[in-house]
Amino acid sequence: MRVAGKPMRTIWPEPDGTVGIIDQTALPHTFTTRRLGTLEEAAHAIRAMLVRGAPLIGVTAAYGVALAMRADPSDASLEAACRTLAATRPTAVNLRWALDEMRRALTEAPQSERASLAWRRAGELADEDVEVNRAIGEHALPLIAETARRVRRRVEILTHCNAGWLATVDWGTALAPIYLAHDSGIDVHVWVDETRPRNQGASLTAWELGQHGVPHTVIVDNAGGHLMQHGRVDLCIVGSDRTTASGDVANKIGTYLKALAAHDNGVPFYVTLPSSTIDWSLRDGREIPIEERDPSEVTHLGGVRLTPADSPAANWAFDVTPARLVTALVTERGVCPASEEGLRRLFPERR
Amino acid sequence: MRVAGKPMRTIWPEPDGTVGIIDQTALPHTFTTRRLGTLEEAAHAIRAMLVRGAPLIGVTAAYGVALAMRADPSDASLEAACRTLAATRPTAVNLRWALDEMRRALTEAPQSERASLAWRRAGELADEDVEVNRAIGEHALPLIAETARRVRRRVEILTHCNAGWLATVDWGTALAPIYLAHDSGIDVHVWVDETRPRNQGASLTAWELGQHGVPHTVIVDNAGGHLMQHGRVDLCIVGSDRTTASGDVANKIGTYLKALAAHDNGVPFYVTLPSSTIDWSLRDGREIPIEERDPSEVTHLGGVRLTPADSPAANWAFDVTPARLVTALVTERGVCPASEEGLRRLFPERR
Repeated sequence: MRVAGKPMRTIWPEPDGTVGIIDQTALPHTFTTRRLGTLEEAAHAIRAMLVRGAPLIGVTAAYGVALAMRADPSDASLEAACRTLAATRPTAVNLRWALDEMRRALTEAPQSERASLAWRRAGELADEDVEVNRAIGEHALPLIAETARRVRRRVEILTHCNAGWLATVDWGTALAPIYLAHDSGIDVHVWVDETRPRNQGASLTAWELGQHGVPHTVIVDNAGGHLMQHGRVDLCIVGSDRTTASGDVANKIGTYLKALAAHDNGVPFYVTLPSSTIDWSLRDGREIPIEERDPSEVTHLGGVRLTPADSPAANWAFDVTPARLVTALVTERGVCPASEEGLRRLFPERR
Repeated sequence: MRVAGKPMRTIWPEPDGTVGIIDQTALPHTFTTRRLGTLEEAAHAIRAMLVRGAPLIGVTAAYGVALAMRADPSDASLEAACRTLAATRPTAVNLRWALDEMRRALTEAPQSERASLAWRRAGELADEDVEVNRAIGEHALPLIAETARRVRRRVEILTHCNAGWLATVDWGTALAPIYLAHDSGIDVHVWVDETRPRNQGASLTAWELGQHGVPHTVIVDNAGGHLMQHGRVDLCIVGSDRTTASGDVANKIGTYLKALAAHDNGVPFYVTLPSSTIDWSLRDGREIPIEERDPSEVTHLGGVRLTPADSPAANWAFDVTPARLVTALVTERGVCPASEEGLRRLFPERR
């Protein structure tokens, strides 16, 4: 998508052999890019959330393997790189998926070819992500277009966290259909959940919607239920960090609360996801490991302490929305019910 | 309750004829008191939330009338004072209730006696609030004690916003039974919702629980659903800014989302309230006017801008939890179902 009118991706190969990224921790006030030159820098970028969002984490990890292969293409180096990168964020399944892809591409290759092969494969994963997200957007677009025809006014969409192009290589997942709708002339407005504790909604979603010219309003995470009670939300669209084979969805903490409110008020609740976030090995969302992050993300904001000095805090990064609260899943292959049957119909090779 | 070991109330008459308050906007980092000497200072203290919480707002407004009567005891002054104070916060019904009480006490009195009468009546309202809250605490205590006997471990309680002694003159509403339980040796732990955008949980509830030695952990507003899904919450207790005759509850924005999660997970959801917050004229919570506050409370925190400079924000201060999601109401007269019948059984004089 565009930054100050110029098309960009969130991650790209630099001519000097490093990997360019946008430092998302500096947004929305400062637009800065960084260059990752080593495995450790790639791992740090994921861990410290300079890059975040399940699809972008996966591609960054793939480039991290490529950087490791250039330093040392041995089997031990490959395994160590995958181990280091897999440990950066425990919930996102794309990370493991991307690392498996890289391992598959590299294990049988001669060591002398691994660096260039890894670099090429990481680039392919980036390109594939763009195509996947565009397809998700096109499959979800009719859900917005139909709503526009039905309500005959501006379509009001609520989203949580950032599942926009900043969370992917381009387009985004939840925001892809919103960009397509806006670009095709459908009048849309997005309620942007602030998304405490890291404020990805307030800082990233609001920023990227603003850069693209999509009308939006930032609200605190507490406000969405009130809006839905008053008919101010036509549909919710969120992303997913991991989806079980039965359609349970792990996404940013607080997603479950919005799904409950949507269900209570008859508002459709859609989850957009690349199939790489599906964990076919799990049938119950309660089995998904939930990352606990540093309590300082809750107690401090921009260097300011929000809580009394001796009050402890806890910081779970994700929650699980049970499939029963999800109106439909939207993948790169199309829309399906949030159920094992629905997913397997779209992905028959997984039967 | 105690501040650094010393018993305090949140509002008190000073020997110099002013009204002492705690500046709650400076908490949790700085404990400062202020003196209100005029109607305008009292109105400002409510509007700018130096004092907040439905019961404390009511008592502050009563003292505001007393300050106005000392400056000018005329009928016009009384009416102007009530009008000014009523406009400070539109949702809290105690404010109107306290102003009606003051008007009733003063209208028939000779102007020469109004100042001293108003001062005395405001002091009585403060004392009555303390008694009412203590009674609420004693009626709700068995709900915690029974849970302790059943679970045979620490009782986990979630609360939203601040319905503690800082929101009242003393004791609090939601926190009153927690203080009583803690003081009687029941092992309790409180999950404190941060409560964006003004962070009354992170700054006030955490502070007052900490001052009293009650174990607690601050979480973001997004986290409560996840905790309830995992059996980490035994009961929720919140306050109310206005309760309809049918048991619908207007409380801090986001309360409704926690009530949905409690309902979805079989967690009891209790609302504590002095009967002065009951609006007997309303039967449907959707009729309660919801205050919209300045968007800067969402876009800025501690002087730091959280959102892009050109992203708008919206800021509703309350939402309404329908009675069907409330396990029981706890008033100074006892516990009752959240229903018209339940409330009228406790308050038969309202039939």
